[in-house]
Amino acid sequence: MSTRTVGILGGGQLARMMVLAGAPMGLRFELFDPAADACGGPLAPLTVAAFDDRQALAAFAAKVDVVTFDFENVPADSAQWLADQVPVYPPPAALAVAQDRLSEKTLFQQLGIPLPPFADIASRDQLAEKVAAFGLPCILKTRRLGYDGKGQFRLRTEADIDAAWDALGAQVEKTGLILEGFVAFQREVSVVAVRGRDGSFQAYPVTGNWHVDGVLSASVAPARLSDAEQQAAIGYARTLAEHLQYVGVFALELFCRDGELLANEMAPRVHNSGHWTIEGSETSQFENHLRAVLGLPLGDTRMLGHACMLNWIGAMPDAAPVLAQSSGHWHDYGKQPRDGRKVGHATLRDGDASALASALEQVGEALGRQAQVGPAVQALRA
Amino acid sequence: MSTRTVGILGGGQLARMMVLAGAPMGLRFELFDPAADACGGPLAPLTVAAFDDRQALAAFAAKVDVVTFDFENVPADSAQWLADQVPVYPPPAALAVAQDRLSEKTLFQQLGIPLPPFADIASRDQLAEKVAAFGLPCILKTRRLGYDGKGQFRLRTEADIDAAWDALGAQVEKTGLILEGFVAFQREVSVVAVRGRDGSFQAYPVTGNWHVDGVLSASVAPARLSDAEQQAAIGYARTLAEHLQYVGVFALELFCRDGELLANEMAPRVHNSGHWTIEGSETSQFENHLRAVLGLPLGDTRMLGHACMLNWIGAMPDAAPVLAQSSGHWHDYGKQPRDGRKVGHATLRDGDASALASALEQVGEALGRQAQVGPAVQALRA
Ligand SMILES: Nc1ncnc2c1ncn2[C@@H]1O[C@H](COP(=O)(O)OP(=O)(O)O)[C@@H](O)[C@H]1O
Ligand SMILES: Nc1ncnc2c1ncn2[C@@H]1O[C@H](COP(=O)(O)OP(=O)(O)O)[C@@H](O)[C@H]1O
Ligand SMILES: [Mg+2]
Ligand SMILES: [Mg+2]
Repeated sequence: MSTRTVGILGGGQLARMMVLAGAPMGLRFELFDPAADACGGPLAPLTVAAFDDRQALAAFAAKVDVVTFDFENVPADSAQWLADQVPVYPPPAALAVAQDRLSEKTLFQQLGIPLPPFADIASRDQLAEKVAAFGLPCILKTRRLGYDGKGQFRLRTEADIDAAWDALGAQVEKTGLILEGFVAFQREVSVVAVRGRDGSFQAYPVTGNWHVDGVLSASVAPARLSDAEQQAAIGYARTLAEHLQYVGVFALELFCRDGELLANEMAPRVHNSGHWTIEGSETSQFENHLRAVLGLPLGDTRMLGHACMLNWIGAMPDAAPVLAQSSGHWHDYGKQPRDGRKVGHATLRDGDASALASALEQVGEALGRQAQVGPAVQALRA
Repeated sequence: MSTRTVGILGGGQLARMMVLAGAPMGLRFELFDPAADACGGPLAPLTVAAFDDRQALAAFAAKVDVVTFDFENVPADSAQWLADQVPVYPPPAALAVAQDRLSEKTLFQQLGIPLPPFADIASRDQLAEKVAAFGLPCILKTRRLGYDGKGQFRLRTEADIDAAWDALGAQVEKTGLILEGFVAFQREVSVVAVRGRDGSFQAYPVTGNWHVDGVLSASVAPARLSDAEQQAAIGYARTLAEHLQYVGVFALELFCRDGELLANEMAPRVHNSGHWTIEGSETSQFENHLRAVLGLPLGDTRMLGHACMLNWIGAMPDAAPVLAQSSGHWHDYGKQPRDGRKVGHATLRDGDASALASALEQVGEALGRQAQVGPAVQALRA
């Protein structure tokens, strides 16, 4: 492997963890981010510029052998323009599909991947009409640029139609809107998978996820699905990746309702619900993403025991209770604290599910975060 | 954990792997190395200066919260001088002992740690006298600055006395000389252990090592020692660490001869025979060293299955055969190739010893390195 330089559009925690995974493989990195304090900056050279700054993009492209993303909302035309200078993975066309909830969901439907009802919404009248068609509750979302539950409005009653339109109606022109039937799921899971340049495909065991206010709070792997459900979920991910000629790691988020799987969305990048793979798998999602975009053989996705990831939002809690656990691993992204910001995570990994549950309970107790660890503990004890 | 900056004297692969282990903990690093191309440089700011450049050391000390080492031959008075500005771990006094084979071996003796006969050598006559006393074969070494088998001469016959003196006699003034009885060992092992600021102590399972021309070639963990041998080896390491009031990771190298353990040397730093801990243990030696020097609780040293590390000396081999193994992990330090230089390593990790042996055989075959993997395969199959 001769020394190669990987360019990453976006220099946040995902880029940071890619650098940490790629350095042992002898890779060098160049990061590109509009924010001068992007948290990958201390670990690799950082170009600070807007994602549509063609001059900066050209200089960046000249320094790297391949380009990938830590951020999926890079303008699709910037990605496409870059792809004319240097190999870009995942392919910009796949990025473009994932950037728009409407085209993403339309594709799920085409591919026979079950999902809740959805409709493009261009006016208040259309909203009222589709709410009547789907029944309540419903959820109105921006088609583009939403993340961590931002740009969403949940409608519980007819009266919420006005409130929803007041909140998001102005976005019709800018981002577009989509209405979805609300799924009363028992749980949420995700498939984190990777596809190589040669079409090889590997999936990690399906992960169970818990969100709070639309933001991931905790994940447990493996999720206890039936074999049939595991296979169905991974099959959907594979179908999608093959259709998109995808290269790299991606996540497919699914709802489980009464034994039925319904697709929610795909993320065309390494994913928060795959952070546990750093300690919990033979090959982390970050290493596998790099292997894929460089055309190297994919690494083994087998698990090492059971793993639980806890997200730290806003500010880092005290590290001591996690460091005191033999199964505890700390991840501080080196960010300034800020409301709602993902600043770090912890992963607890253990061969024994019930030992892991006990360790989580101790951490929850010590940090006053019983509510955060609770669902994961329950899932591990089930 | 507030953001802390760790200064490392020496910016080579050990520093590089410390940075990679410490970044997830939110740590920042400053490296200090006489070589501008030190391979840690791409991952952290690097001061390029001589280890006795007090002005550069003072500026370095001002930027960091604690200082540690990737290189044990930093002049002891530089380390001591730094310790007056900023906390330095391991303590400079421990470094000083480990820098001189004579004081190191004298200490082993004092502490009741068995070792081969040794003597300080100041003249050719004294050499001849001690060779007669110990019997042949013997090994003449520089007291200071030897590493990777450099500064050693093996005496097999009386006639070698002149050759040995010709080769090393000129070093008497500069580094001093020591003669050791040669141990016809069946195998070599090392204890990699860590001691915290609070006196807590943890050891990794004893590792089996194979050297070629005095340089580590392969390691396997755990080494199959009897419980009594394991306990004795770890007991020696603990005794030594406690006597030195040691803080951080260190290695104690031992010979096994007819069921007897004889100490060879200690390394006051993270150690090549502990590289397998990155994938093979719950907490790597690099993370545990950082936890120790920062006064954090030590991490669990339990193994995840069996591990074998293969050193890459001189130039990196083809990565493909290792990446193709599900158990394979690649480490390229990003160094220019050079004869005898440690440029990288691979670790294969598997829950099943015989699967690991087979994977090693395949790698050995594919790379034409059957001789390198052979002893490890045999040990895993024994
Ligand atoms: N149609 C839906 N039914 C039920 N819950 C939903 C639905 N859409 C979103 N949610 C909830 O909100 C979370 C975030 O929504 P999502 O569409 O994944 O947006 P984001 O892109 O912000 O992750 C989901 O993980 C789920 O918990
Ligand atoms: N007294 C000895 N008897 C037998 N072999 C020895 C002896 N000393 C050194 N060796 C061999 O040479 C290797 C390197 O020697 P060592 O003293 O550890 O020096 P270094 O500091 O270069 O590692 C050892 O690992 C061992 O294989
Ligand atoms: Mg989502
Ligand atoms: Mg040695």
